[in-house]
Amino acid sequence: MAALCISFLFLLLFCLSCPATNPSMLNVHLVPHTHDDVGWLKTVDQYYYGDRNYIQHAGVQYILDSVIDQLQKDPARRFIYVETAFFYRWWRQQSQDTRRIVTQLVNEGRLEFINGGWCMSDEATTHYSAVIDQMTLGLRFLNDTFGECGRPRVAWHIDPFGHAREHASIFAQMGYDGFFFGRLDYQDKARRMKTKEMEMLWRASESLTPPLADLFTGVLPNGYNPPEGFCWDQSCNDAPIRDDPDLEDYNVDEIVQRFLNVSYNQAAFYKTNHIIMTMGSDFQYENANLWYKNMDKLIKYVNALQAKGSKVNVLYSTPSCYLQELNLANLTWPLKTDDFFPYADDAHDFWTGYFTSRPALKLYERLSNSRLQTCNQLEVLGGPKSTSGPFGEGDSDTMSKAMGVAQHHDAVSGTEKQHVAYDYARRLATGWAHCEVLVRNSLAVLSGSESPRVFCENLNISVCPLTESSQKVLYFSMNVYNPLGRTVSWPVRLPVNGSLYNVTDSNGKAVDSQVGNYVFMSFKHICNIYDMKSSSLLPLLSVSINSKSILVYVFKFLKVNFDDTTGLLSSLTNLETNQTIRLTQNFYWYNASAGNNKESHQTSGAYIFRPNSSDPFVINKTAEIQTVTVSSTVQEVTQWFSPWVSQVVRLYEGHRELELEWTVGPVPIADGLGKEVITRLDTDIESSDYFYTDSNGREVLERRKDYRPTWDLKQTEPIAGNYYPINSRAYIKDDKHQLTVVTDRSQGASSIYNGSLEIMLHRRLLYDDFRGVGEPLSEPGEFFDGLVARGRLLLALTPPKMAADVHRPLAQGMVLQPLLSFQDGTPLANTKLEFSGLQAALPPAVHLLTLSQWDKDSVLIRLEHQYQAKESETHSQPVTASLPLSLSAKDPSPWEVTLNPMEIRTFLLRVRQL
Amino acid sequence: MAALCISFLFLLLFCLSCPATNPSMLNVHLVPHTHDDVGWLKTVDQYYYGDRNYIQHAGVQYILDSVIDQLQKDPARRFIYVETAFFYRWWRQQSQDTRRIVTQLVNEGRLEFINGGWCMSDEATTHYSAVIDQMTLGLRFLNDTFGECGRPRVAWHIDPFGHAREHASIFAQMGYDGFFFGRLDYQDKARRMKTKEMEMLWRASESLTPPLADLFTGVLPNGYNPPEGFCWDQSCNDAPIRDDPDLEDYNVDEIVQRFLNVSYNQAAFYKTNHIIMTMGSDFQYENANLWYKNMDKLIKYVNALQAKGSKVNVLYSTPSCYLQELNLANLTWPLKTDDFFPYADDAHDFWTGYFTSRPALKLYERLSNSRLQTCNQLEVLGGPKSTSGPFGEGDSDTMSKAMGVAQHHDAVSGTEKQHVAYDYARRLATGWAHCEVLVRNSLAVLSGSESPRVFCENLNISVCPLTESSQKVLYFSMNVYNPLGRTVSWPVRLPVNGSLYNVTDSNGKAVDSQVGNYVFMSFKHICNIYDMKSSSLLPLLSVSINSKSILVYVFKFLKVNFDDTTGLLSSLTNLETNQTIRLTQNFYWYNASAGNNKESHQTSGAYIFRPNSSDPFVINKTAEIQTVTVSSTVQEVTQWFSPWVSQVVRLYEGHRELELEWTVGPVPIADGLGKEVITRLDTDIESSDYFYTDSNGREVLERRKDYRPTWDLKQTEPIAGNYYPINSRAYIKDDKHQLTVVTDRSQGASSIYNGSLEIMLHRRLLYDDFRGVGEPLSEPGEFFDGLVARGRLLLALTPPKMAADVHRPLAQGMVLQPLLSFQDGTPLANTKLEFSGLQAALPPAVHLLTLSQWDKDSVLIRLEHQYQAKESETHSQPVTASLPLSLSAKDPSPWEVTLNPMEIRTFLLRVRQL
Repeated sequence: MAALCISFLFLLLFCLSCPATNPSMLNVHLVPHTHDDVGWLKTVDQYYYGDRNYIQHAGVQYILDSVIDQLQKDPARRFIYVETAFFYRWWRQQSQDTRRIVTQLVNEGRLEFINGGWCMSDEATTHYSAVIDQMTLGLRFLNDTFGECGRPRVAWHIDPFGHAREHASIFAQMGYDGFFFGRLDYQDKARRMKTKEMEMLWRASESLTPPLADLFTGVLPNGYNPPEGFCWDQSCNDAPIRDDPDLEDYNVDEIVQRFLNVSYNQAAFYKTNHIIMTMGSDFQYENANLWYKNMDKLIKYVNALQAKGSKVNVLYSTPSCYLQELNLANLTWPLKTDDFFPYADDAHDFWTGYFTSRPALKLYERLSNSRLQTCNQLEVLGGPKSTSGPFGEGDSDTMSKAMGVAQHHDAVSGTEKQHVAYDYARRLATGWAHCEVLVRNSLAVLSGSESPRVFCENLNISVCPLTESSQKVLYFSMNVYNPLGRTVSWPVRLPVNGSLYNVTDSNGKAVDSQVGNYVFMSFKHICNIYDMKSSSLLPLLSVSINSKSILVYVFKFLKVNFDDTTGLLSSLTNLETNQTIRLTQNFYWYNASAGNNKESHQTSGAYIFRPNSSDPFVINKTAEIQTVTVSSTVQEVTQWFSPWVSQVVRLYEGHRELELEWTVGPVPIADGLGKEVITRLDTDIESSDYFYTDSNGREVLERRKDYRPTWDLKQTEPIAGNYYPINSRAYIKDDKHQLTVVTDRSQGASSIYNGSLEIMLHRRLLYDDFRGVGEPLSEPGEFFDGLVARGRLLLALTPPKMAADVHRPLAQGMVLQPLLSFQDGTPLANTKLEFSGLQAALPPAVHLLTLSQWDKDSVLIRLEHQYQAKESETHSQPVTASLPLSLSAKDPSPWEVTLNPMEIRTFLLRVRQL
Repeated sequence: MAALCISFLFLLLFCLSCPATNPSMLNVHLVPHTHDDVGWLKTVDQYYYGDRNYIQHAGVQYILDSVIDQLQKDPARRFIYVETAFFYRWWRQQSQDTRRIVTQLVNEGRLEFINGGWCMSDEATTHYSAVIDQMTLGLRFLNDTFGECGRPRVAWHIDPFGHAREHASIFAQMGYDGFFFGRLDYQDKARRMKTKEMEMLWRASESLTPPLADLFTGVLPNGYNPPEGFCWDQSCNDAPIRDDPDLEDYNVDEIVQRFLNVSYNQAAFYKTNHIIMTMGSDFQYENANLWYKNMDKLIKYVNALQAKGSKVNVLYSTPSCYLQELNLANLTWPLKTDDFFPYADDAHDFWTGYFTSRPALKLYERLSNSRLQTCNQLEVLGGPKSTSGPFGEGDSDTMSKAMGVAQHHDAVSGTEKQHVAYDYARRLATGWAHCEVLVRNSLAVLSGSESPRVFCENLNISVCPLTESSQKVLYFSMNVYNPLGRTVSWPVRLPVNGSLYNVTDSNGKAVDSQVGNYVFMSFKHICNIYDMKSSSLLPLLSVSINSKSILVYVFKFLKVNFDDTTGLLSSLTNLETNQTIRLTQNFYWYNASAGNNKESHQTSGAYIFRPNSSDPFVINKTAEIQTVTVSSTVQEVTQWFSPWVSQVVRLYEGHRELELEWTVGPVPIADGLGKEVITRLDTDIESSDYFYTDSNGREVLERRKDYRPTWDLKQTEPIAGNYYPINSRAYIKDDKHQLTVVTDRSQGASSIYNGSLEIMLHRRLLYDDFRGVGEPLSEPGEFFDGLVARGRLLLALTPPKMAADVHRPLAQGMVLQPLLSFQDGTPLANTKLEFSGLQAALPPAVHLLTLSQWDKDSVLIRLEHQYQAKESETHSQPVTASLPLSLSAKDPSPWEVTLNPMEIRTFLLRVRQL
């Protein structure tokens, strides 16, 4: 009884414990911390083990070992830990004894988890759904392991290169009390220091009712480093405190005086009598004794001066304890409503290159997100046999963790070394391999057929061995799994060798298709298993090009014209709304700075975009039109611009968007010039200086050329300084027209001219940009000299007020793509050819964000309202939905949910086996 | 009672505990260790604190912190610690709790002190008396702190660059069970590996009766480093053991296999089924967790294979535990009777330059030794008032520690960075400042006069403000303290401004003196206070140089001839023995290799001597004779060779040696050539290839050109490969003549030609020699471009069998020089003008090695027989001496001691205040 009682008190007293401060003094909160990149110069596992230290000295296993040892030596000492991907690796190798000690340290607030996601995600190039997933993965581990005392109360994005409003919104909605970061535009920082606006309230959504997305936000004084001269890590060379008067160079007095100066200097930029100092940096605390031993002395000698009248009180603390003091100060903080992009750390140093760096990795990460959602859903729908079934053991966990790691701010951002980029891709591939087994098992359960099933990974380059071997296999069937909560129309293109194909759907009904070098068809279903048999010839419709006239391609909803002189697009018409814009599209490249510029030696690199000139070079003024295909399902024009740039322009029957499938690469560099390749859409839309970009694929922010909403911008880079990240869309508009571009991955975009929108597609550079990665961004290709990237832009022309109704579902469909799988031969008898996990489609405004197995007895469901307030006349309203899950092995309990615009709601559904 | 009982058992059981081994397996003893230079690239205190890590990452305070933490985690873990100068610094800053923990670790044998001197002394350039002192300083601290369990049982000289027989002899006499080192000639090592003679019995004295100086000696397999690929320190980049199969790059199997291979390969070179691996290196274990965590895994996984038939057993161990296993093997080891000089690690890489590097530091260290002995003696003789008397607080401890540090193998060796060399000198100066107070106090006690007393530090450059201000001070008195145990004749030269001086001794008797620019006189006393008054003129005897005839200088015992054509010496005659040799002496320089030689890129540097050519350049074929002084006390000739080389040749009345006072520097390097300056004595002695050098100032070893006693030498450097260290003397001889040179500091010497003996005096180089110091050896001077060095060689010509009778006392007189101090005016009445600490001189064979205060109640006395067996007809016999100490405040208890040749005996004399 007594023991239990003590243990209970313990939790109550210490889990929230913060060190005492002195209200009549300047309190300096020392925050011991390490910043552990979940991959960068080394892979995440190399960082964990401390392998390949010749690349960078860093070993996270030792950091945690050492910190735990040192925390035990003095109850005053504090430490915060951030990256759960690493903590998880470490925890599973610890003895019960160590786990008990760590738990006690956590319970006493001496070790505090901060942020707590699987990684510290990138903010410019991540999609909100993957960010929420990775945060959930990390926070869940902490909660499962430590309970309430392990819950991070502060978001901590000290390193990401600019800050997205949607991230702040997510943090606010997750219940974080505050947010700290280190990097912001140097002009912004200077202004904020002057006006004491380093700390503020960020209102992170225009749709959610305050304070739902309000978040206290603090800019740290020294990035995330200690003040100059006070770095006592083994990686630093600052003088230790030498306090033995019998040895040479006693320096206590000098160090104390220097610290008092630094403290007063810093306090001048903040509003309260509390200031925070980050005592740590990248992979520091591998030998925590160095830090703590010297900080112990610093605290002792600085505070000893209080007896002589000093008014500085220094203490070990944490961001949440610091924040608690700020809250007690009861001040009104300035309001922030835009975001912190783009980030520049000097006049010619705009971190806007990484918005596009490593385009293939960015696409693969996005596709992997789609696959993970499918995997998660099928794990729920297929029941326990999904993870252990006829095709063996499968899991979604490997893919979750791979995606968790890929969200890191040196992962999908493209700012890692090449070997690390390969590692991220390998992890995603391994994750998918585990998911493939799960999906096979699940589809076997759902279809009742255990026939082997294959996936075709390389359909984007028209490779699928099963469908191509049609001379042997007369029949094959394709399964389409649609992870969206509603019907979608999705064009499918399969490589085949036969010339006659009879395509039928699950009901045996013929599907319209076209055979050229491939079978092309389009489906509108939630989840179908199709039967495909090579039989009837579908005639190929071809149209000869009349070189004298304007070429026109048209389906029901769209018309697109080409200029026959240039071969470029010339106009786009929405036949429903009867609106037409002039539209020219072409490819250009900015010449990347080699650093030999007199104003600055900054180069373009993995992080930085810095063109030598504001005028990009056109790759070709004209496009050679190579093939033209006109059929009942698709019309397409292939444009050839150069040996390394081509494009297919496509219209799909029944679709409201124009697809531009671009292929760029290998970008030539034999001329000694780094190249940053853009596609530019030039229209007669009167957009002036304005354009719009989404934040992490969700809410859209207005951008204005050469302008920042919160300070008087001195523009120093007319191109790079106007680039913003887009994750799913960008648009320009005037009163009548809105041209929206939906992308398949994160990219950088801008509008430099009235009516123009440009998107950076690919970059190949010759120099490192001095931000640590130590490599020029020049990705190798598989067969050629450099990487070939291919991707799709979907263009929608609408009146502005109707735009969201098109781009919201279009973008969600791009994010959650159907999964195709194939089986030899015709389906066996008793095979269930169609299945839906939902008894009915969700309302148009409601998006099924998450459906995944939480544990044996519960399912995690997230529903969101996918429209912003005011953007859609039809959908920007509160909506009530029921989720009529059709879980064969589960207890279907439909329930009603009301969602406001941009609201996300999360449910843990307890299910029981019937 | 119970507690006492346990505590007793404890000591018995654990202090000697060694890990269990397996007699049927190959036992691999992993020895975790750090090698902490007591100054090298940083000063000793910078190393201690981890200051200036930009020079070298090294912080000993953290090493000890970390190791103590890690040892506590597993009782199987072991660590050895070596350098007491560092341990002492650390220990005094520890809490009682930590001290208790450390004591327990020591008692349990988990932390074992090895070697245990204040530093790991250099072996080539140290004098045995200073080595014994620094060992005593370290061992005493360990004994006082930890008692018997703190006693090092193994000597451990893993880094010194060659090994002196006298060091081994001292270790044997100190009771060490064995000796391990890392560096030996690469040819020697190859041979020993082949013949399994890596471990041997070193018979380290030709005088002491075996096994008095017998010492088991082992050559470590990898210097002092771990086997390649197994370095897990933070300073290394070897792969950690990655044993989590869920993470990438699992490497347990590969590492285990590699370790088994390494073990078997190593075992092939050793005789028993035990092998030792040094797991550590320079300043390693700052973060001991990295080492131990990976070694824990290594031990676990390697030994796990035993279940599958592996015959390798790996364990944490210590050198003494390894040695214990070797002893149990009961083998006969090969016998070694010479030494391990010179050391070469490759064909053109002879570490023979440091024998001479930093000649001024080497002299200052030697003088400091003399001063420390004086300080120690006067502390005893003056009683308690010495340390706290009329002149304030003085101590000998500061000087002891400064000398302890100066013995380090990168201190007096001259192989440290310049700023570190300055630090050593500064420490010695500070030590002497503390001693000065002690000496003043003591002399005040002994003389009964508290008049102010000054010391003249710069008499070697004829500066002494007190004596020079004779126009104001009509009288001054000089005190001469002679620290030898017998009367010595010592020439004194003082700068004065007057021209008439009346010099009287303590009895008022006139002393023969000469005034030129200085007062010159010679004393034969143990300890005198002289009264000097400027009065009577002593006529200056001068002889004009007859340029046609041979110049002859002569006193009672010696005659020296000069060649009037060349101005060089031409012959030397001993008038007592009536023997004459041809003797030419001149200065030359070897051109230091710049590394641009086709055979090897090795340069000459602080460590390495590598002349470009075997033929040195003569500085001048003729010497210009600048001044000639002939008087009743001294006759001297000043030779000028070049602007940077001159010499004074002196004969003293009543002396049996010829003094050559050389001045070399600043060595010019404007010609882009590094220079290594020698003095060479060319005689008609038929020495053939043989010459003789002392070992640490004690026993003499025979050397033979292009020859090593224990292996068939392939000579690859005809000059550098024949250089040996001399600490106090070298000689050549034939049946009739022996020419002995006694030096004032350690130097390198050789005999390249029959009848020739050369000594390297000074070096100034342009390149670093790639052994880590990272600086060319080019010492700055005070006023000039480079360092000017000045020194003395004393030449004695005798029949070989009489040589020791001359050079033994001569060398001891050079080591323990009289201390001069000065007072203004005439001594006050009642001043005691003469005093002796000994009631009678010691017998000629007996040297008073140490007389120092041990603690309040006891005095440490060391007596030694200063002759080798067989070298002197008169003195190489056992001798019985009583030590009639005349300690005013102590209890004089004379006792009888019998000493055999080269024997040292130590006494702790308990004294009580009367």
